[in-house]
This record gives sequence, C-alpha cells and structure tokens, in this order.
Amino acid sequence: MPAVTFNATVELALNYIGIFVFAISGALLAVHKNYDIVGMTVLAEITAIGGGVLRDLILGATPPASFTDSVTFLLPLVAAALTFFIHQRMGRIQAAVLVFDAAGLALFCVTGTTKALAYHMGPVEAIALGALTAVGGGIMRDVLANEQPAVLRADSELYAVPAVLGAALVVILQRFTLYNPVTAAITIALVFALRMAALRYGWRAPHPRQRTPNPSAPSAGA
Amino acid sequence: MPAVTFNATVELALNYIGIFVFAISGALLAVHKNYDIVGMTVLAEITAIGGGVLRDLILGATPPASFTDSVTFLLPLVAAALTFFIHQRMGRIQAAVLVFDAAGLALFCVTGTTKALAYHMGPVEAIALGALTAVGGGIMRDVLANEQPAVLRADSELYAVPAVLGAALVVILQRFTLYNPVTAAITIALVFALRMAALRYGWRAPHPRQRTPNPSAPSAGA
Amino acid sequence: MPAVTFNATVELALNYIGIFVFAISGALLAVHKNYDIVGMTVLAEITAIGGGVLRDLILGATPPASFTDSVTFLLPLVAAALTFFIHQRMGRIQAAVLVFDAAGLALFCVTGTTKALAYHMGPVEAIALGALTAVGGGIMRDVLANEQPAVLRADSELYAVPAVLGAALVVILQRFTLYNPVTAAITIALVFALRMAALRYGWRAPHPRQRTPNPSAPSAGA
Repeated sequence: MPAVTFNATVELALNYIGIFVFAISGALLAVHKNYDIVGMTVLAEITAIGGGVLRDLILGATPPASFTDSVTFLLPLVAAALTFFIHQRMGRIQAAVLVFDAAGLALFCVTGTTKALAYHMGPVEAIALGALTAVGGGIMRDVLANEQPAVLRADSELYAVPAVLGAALVVILQRFTLYNPVTAAITIALVFALRMAALRYGWRAPHPRQRTPNPSAPSAGA
Repeated sequence: MPAVTFNATVELALNYIGIFVFAISGALLAVHKNYDIVGMTVLAEITAIGGGVLRDLILGATPPASFTDSVTFLLPLVAAALTFFIHQRMGRIQAAVLVFDAAGLALFCVTGTTKALAYHMGPVEAIALGALTAVGGGIMRDVLANEQPAVLRADSELYAVPAVLGAALVVILQRFTLYNPVTAAITIALVFALRMAALRYGWRAPHPRQRTPNPSAPSAGA
Repeated sequence: MPAVTFNATVELALNYIGIFVFAISGALLAVHKNYDIVGMTVLAEITAIGGGVLRDLILGATPPASFTDSVTFLLPLVAAALTFFIHQRMGRIQAAVLVFDAAGLALFCVTGTTKALAYHMGPVEAIALGALTAVGGGIMRDVLANEQPAVLRADSELYAVPAVLGAALVVILQRFTLYNPVTAAITIALVFALRMAALRYGWRAPHPRQRTPNPSAPSAGA
C-alpha cells in the first residue's frame, strides 16, 4: 500500500513543516502587536494547530491529531522561542508573517484535503475541509489578535482562492490515483506561488458593485 | 411513524430555507463591509452552517450534517453569487440583512431544538442547543466581520429571546405530541414576528441599573 | 477506589464553584459594557462553560458535561440574575471581574487537567487541556465582548502562566499518586495567589526586544 506509506511518512513531514511555519507566523504577529512571550506562544500554538483541530473535530477524529502527538505541541513552543531571539534579523516583520503564512497555507490545504478524503468525505466536503485546515488557524490568530482576518479583508489579495484550488487539485489527483509525493510537492509549490504572486502583483477577487459610495462602510466596525 | 416522516422531509426543507436566508444575510453584510466575492462566500457559508456545525459537534453527531450533504454546502455559494449580482435591487442593505437574519433565526431555533430532542437531550439542553443553532452562525458572522454580535449589542432589540421562546415552544409541543408541520410553521412565524416587532417597536431587554454614568464604558473596547 | 470517589464528589463541587465564579465574571463584564440582561446571561454562560465545552469536544467526550447536567446550565443563569441585582454593591466592577476570573482560572486548570488525565491524555496534552479549560471561557468572553483577551494583552500581568503551572502540578501529583482533596485545594490556592500577586505587583512575562520603536504597532488593530 504505497498510499499508506506516503501518508505515514511524507504527510507527517509536511504536517510538521506546516505547523512550524504557521507557528512562526503567529509568533511574529505577536511581536508586531508587542505581546509578551506568553502571547507569542499562544498565537504560535493556535495558528499552528487551530485549523487541524477544527478539521478533526468536524471529521469526528477525536482527540485531534495535535493532542495525540506531543511533537505537534512542542514544535510551536520551539518556533515561539526561536522567534523571540532571532526576530530582529528577519527584516520587515509584516512581510515575514505573510511569507510563512503562505507556506503554511500551501502545506495545510494539501494535508487537510488528504485527511478528509481518508475519512471518506465527498469531494466538495474534502475541498471545504482542506481549505478550512489551511485558513482556520490564521483566522483564529487574527480574531484573537483583533486583526481583520486576511480571508475577509476588503483590500486583500487572493488568500482562500489558492487554498481552494490546491484542495481541488488534490481531490482530482487522488481520483485519478496520480497523488504521490511528487504531485503533492508540485501542488504545494503552486499554491505557495499563487499566493505570493497575488501579494506581489496585487491580484484580487472581484468586488460587488457599490451603488453609491457607501459612507457608513468604513466606520461599520464595532 | 409520522414524526420520522416529518423530520425527513419538512425538517430538511426548513433547514435548506434557513441555510439560504442566513447565507444571504452573511453575503449582504459582506457587501456592506465592502468585502470581495471571496469574503461574501466565506461569510455566507459561516452564517449558514456555523450554528448547525456547533450544535452537531456538541451532540457528537460527526461529521456535522452540513458535511454529509453537498446541497448544504452549495446553497450558500448560490446565495453569495445571487447576492453579488442583485444586491443593488435590495433597497437598504442593512435592513435586508436584518430581515433575512430574522428568518434564519426563526427556522433554525425550530430545527435545532428538534434535532437536539432527537438526540435525547433534556429539555433545558434542547432549548439551549436550539437557541445556539439559531444565534451561533450570526455570532460567527459578526465576530469575523468585526461587528458587535447582535445578541450582545448594548442597544440591541430582542434577539436571543425570540429564539429561546421558540425553542421552548418546540420542547413543549413535542412533550405533548403536538409537534407537526402546522405547529412548527406557527412557531417559526411567531419567532419571526416577535423579532421583527422588536426591531420595529424597539423592544429591549432590561438593563442593569448603572450606579453612576460610567465614563470608561464607551472606551472599554479593545 | 478513593480516586473515583474524589472525582465524583469534590471534583463536581470544584467544577460548580468554578462555573459560578466565571459566570459572575462574565456577567460583570456585561454590566461594564452596558449590555442588557440577555447579554449578561450569554456572557455568563459562555465564560462559565466555554472552556469545559472546548476541552470535552477535543477529548471526544460528547455531549460535553455542561450539556448532560442541567445544574451546569442553570448556575450561570442564577449568577447573571444575582449580578443584575447586586452589582451595585460590588465596588469597582473591573476589579471584581479580575478576582472572580482568577478564582475560575484556578479551579478550572485543576479540574480540566484531572479530566484530561482521566481520558488517558499524555502529560503535555493534559497540561495543555487543563490550561485551555482555564483560559478558554475567558477568551470567548473577551472576543465576544470585543475586548483584547487577557491572555494576549500586551501589558497584561501573568495569566496563562499560573494556569500552566497549576496544570503541571496536577500532572506531577497524579503521577506520584499524591493527588487528593488537600493537594488539589493547595494547588487551587497557589494558582489563585500567583494570579492575584501578579496583578498586585505587576508581574509580567518577558517581551521580545523591539528593534526600534514600532510606530505601527499601536494602530495595528483591525
């Protein structure tokens, strides 16, 4: 069963890398918000495992993977500690948050979709869960840090779209038994590249036409 | 077993209608906040299925209904697309959000309570879960869009109260085996009417007396 | 089996007290935010049962304990009603929120860790779940009320740290079969005292060094 072997090793590695980069994005946002080491740790953990925990709760796969594998818990602590000491060498912090976040997005939409398919979800649901795995942790990070979630922000570049496309690609690849470490890596690279290109060139999704300049919208926030 | 037949057909229809109207309320709020089509889709999905997913996770009914029935997932996409093209004909958007939200509130407090009772929850818990189904999606919509949840807002008209009353009515009707499509429809109409009347006439729940004008309250937000 | 007897009686009592004090902290925050009685009830419920529900969902212990025991549901209603009438005698409300919140924190980190261990979680995961039980309800309270969560706030005194230490102490005590009503009470007292001392003396966790005064951080909120 090569598929199982693939799941058991490459999937695990991809998942650890995704956890690590998302944890760094959370810790860096905490630095940017001037939080202390505890806030850095909390945001690192939630960003890293939030999306996967949501996915596993919905799949009924309890306890979630992050609560049965201590490495998953300790990695974000390492990421937070590392960020605590070396964030000053990282250039512009906001730019670094975006790069690490894009890497996590790409990794988690692939691993999330794969797990959903392994739990016999239909194609639509698998794509939704893959995308949720990818964006869920970041949404929790942004809500807790009182930032507008990137997936919603009015002036945001494509964020959920690359994750949905990546998840759909995984579903198609698996349907035609073309899913293997090489095609998985290509999918991850494509999602990452699409997100970075959207940031670089300002690609955006279409807006609904506004009837008239809406004077109340900018001040609609609570 | 007419009750089962009722559940299997009328409940499904009520649930789809509730999903659709909540999805429109989410998509309209996204228009109001000037989000793009992705933000509209995300808010439509979360408003439509958020309360039901919460209820099903608490019941241990995993995967939640919304993840085993693709229609549930595709309906909010249709609602978001529809809203994208026709929102300009909807008069004042904020008023339309409130009407569709009230319809979803009425439908979901009935279907949510029914499902909780089918899972053998006690009366208090069934009322709580029915109300949670009704207000959960809207709370998630408002938190993600950085709006004060309607259920909490200091100057809000009755919102949770109609849902709790509707859920209690369903519990009573089922206890006396008087629950059928007609009484369900009447309950839904009552909840909707109560919410709309509260909005129309400014009915509010009592406030705790303030000792002295609290100068710090207005600026207490984070 | 004294351990079981301990769980079945003392644990239940500690849990009820924790629910009650957390509910009061939620109701008081609602008073401070000028919410009505409904908002007080919602914040009381969510603060009181939010952390435990999260823990139980992660453990796969569904329905969560709060949905199988009506007392758990009714206690926050009592707390909200009580707060509605007597909050004016409570001196400074914000100070009272902090005291009741500290008591809930101390009680729930002990009961949460105990339950996680009873569900055969490893030590790291049990500490994480104990801390999550302790801080989860307060985080939900603060997010819904649009306050910065105390666990993150940039200028906050130690909050998660006492909970993590208390949870770790429970794990150690149980490992050496020294966990009993007396040591549990001592642990609760220590966590409460540590939190109150941190508030009194302004103890804080270390911050990452800022490269330069970051002019954008104060305005980084959404």
